[in-house]
Amino acid sequence: MAVAKAERPRRSGEFELIRRYFRPLAGTAALDLTDDAALLQAEPGRDLILTTDTIVEGVHFPEGEAPAFVAKRLIRVNLSDLAAKGARPKAYLLNTAWTSRVDDAWIEAFTGALAEEQVRYDIELAGGDTVSTPGPLTLTLTAIGSVPRGRALLRSDARPGDLVFVSGRIGDGIFGLWAAQGRDLPGAEPEDRAFLADSFRFPEPRLALGAILAGEGEGARLARGCADVSDGLIADLGHVCEASGVGAVIDAAAVPLSVAGRRLVAAQPSLLQDAVTGGDDYELVFTVRPEDADAVRDAGAAAGTNVTAIGRIVAGSGVELRDTNGRVMNMPRRGFSHDPA
Amino acid sequence: MAVAKAERPRRSGEFELIRRYFRPLAGTAALDLTDDAALLQAEPGRDLILTTDTIVEGVHFPEGEAPAFVAKRLIRVNLSDLAAKGARPKAYLLNTAWTSRVDDAWIEAFTGALAEEQVRYDIELAGGDTVSTPGPLTLTLTAIGSVPRGRALLRSDARPGDLVFVSGRIGDGIFGLWAAQGRDLPGAEPEDRAFLADSFRFPEPRLALGAILAGEGEGARLARGCADVSDGLIADLGHVCEASGVGAVIDAAAVPLSVAGRRLVAAQPSLLQDAVTGGDDYELVFTVRPEDADAVRDAGAAAGTNVTAIGRIVAGSGVELRDTNGRVMNMPRRGFSHDPA
Repeated sequence: MAVAKAERPRRSGEFELIRRYFRPLAGTAALDLTDDAALLQAEPGRDLILTTDTIVEGVHFPEGEAPAFVAKRLIRVNLSDLAAKGARPKAYLLNTAWTSRVDDAWIEAFTGALAEEQVRYDIELAGGDTVSTPGPLTLTLTAIGSVPRGRALLRSDARPGDLVFVSGRIGDGIFGLWAAQGRDLPGAEPEDRAFLADSFRFPEPRLALGAILAGEGEGARLARGCADVSDGLIADLGHVCEASGVGAVIDAAAVPLSVAGRRLVAAQPSLLQDAVTGGDDYELVFTVRPEDADAVRDAGAAAGTNVTAIGRIVAGSGVELRDTNGRVMNMPRRGFSHDPA
Repeated sequence: MAVAKAERPRRSGEFELIRRYFRPLAGTAALDLTDDAALLQAEPGRDLILTTDTIVEGVHFPEGEAPAFVAKRLIRVNLSDLAAKGARPKAYLLNTAWTSRVDDAWIEAFTGALAEEQVRYDIELAGGDTVSTPGPLTLTLTAIGSVPRGRALLRSDARPGDLVFVSGRIGDGIFGLWAAQGRDLPGAEPEDRAFLADSFRFPEPRLALGAILAGEGEGARLARGCADVSDGLIADLGHVCEASGVGAVIDAAAVPLSVAGRRLVAAQPSLLQDAVTGGDDYELVFTVRPEDADAVRDAGAAAGTNVTAIGRIVAGSGVELRDTNGRVMNMPRRGFSHDPA
């Protein structure tokens, strides 16, 4: 049956999509995307780090979200996982399950944003898979990086007596989500909304800091237990504590907030709990021997990222947040799960 | 609101699922699945091969398919891609988007089958991601293998004058799909249906053959252009030809069929075209310099797999199938695409 012009598919076939939109992104490891596999040449003296995330439209990002935002966030969230290992990014694999709503224009905008990120982070597409789905748009990205042999930062290396540091500012992830959703932000100045929404939309993976903390170049490894703040500061530090068999005590007043975040917390103090449990900050939380504290502050300066000591690792388990009087603060929840059972 | 007992989720939470079902599958690279990343230690003198596939319920496998079948096929199809590169499998990443219908019993059967495959193929789970989806069950597996440095088999290395070989038998994939679907099989004996359906359900990736063809151990690389037969013999050889800038002429009478396949083609000769275009055979099709033909036959014997010369690489482009009189046979289609635009 002839297909009328108005009914022709809005999306090109798989091979044409690959040729037109994905091959320009492909690096040498991708074997020109003609080989159904990626080839990574051995890097003497370096270990490989792989991390992978799947995101589903309507679950992990809103239906109808702009393709450039989806692409950039997908890349950056995975690069943040590499940063938490101290890894230098190399390449990524991309698996896409397109819905019928995804047309060539969508894919062009999506891959255009990937191209920008490839330049920004010096990475290349190494392979992937393209299928169709009758369900929601589902994307899997696998980021590949490398670290000097034996230097990867792990969650399991925190020890009692370590100081707990965090990079950047905490809370802009959750406050930025609210800003993007148009929710009321108590105490916010007019300029805060756009600043916060952009913080949520375009997190900056702390790759330079992570690399220094792992001892990339001639340095020694500075950090011990390390994670990125995706589920929430308390939850992710909790993962470090659980993997290390230790506990942590955090000084609430020391948690670094942005100017906008400080205005919100000043107007409504309970928002501090949201800041430390909200997630999506993509900062690094890591532990350091006290004698390395100055070197870690220097590392932050070298990486162009604030680092702030916020507490201490203790024997035991769990994470306590203490107020200025040393009292344990209740937390409404321990971080956000995208996937309630 | 309290959840009544009858309404409680049939599926445990993400962390509990990981602890109970996935951690037992995890190898050392997985960092106990507590680290959101996999760490692959450097293997001096070896290149890494990565290959990834996404499968969607209702698109790539029937709705309600048994979880053990889904698991085994997902693993084997990816290992077949490694075999086509001559790679030795090491580990895999698994990304799962569960539907509400996927309960603990489903996951237990699924991961139980993965455990069997891990023993069979000497691989381990290195990481992944677990999310929920309102859409169809969607699974992404990324297989990781390695080859001696510079020895990976590529699609792009076929040259005019090469002989074309194929491993095993061709056509049991499509005939087996028909058998599994309960379709009429002309000329089939009673025992053929189960044999063919099992061939489709449980393909055997040609890892031992691929490794010998790549020169694993002390050998030289024997094969030049190589692919696995997933889209169909003609289509996959076509991919080799396109990547290599050559053409191929195949002798239809030389294409190896199983006993069951021969009975079908004897009863209905046009089924030969289905055999060479149907796909899902997961054999290797590869090209060889004529002087290496005997060494390749020895390699097949050493790997316990028949290898059969079926044609020749020529200057030009495209794949021609010729009958016993040397006439070009028409083919109804060039392989099967799971993803029509």
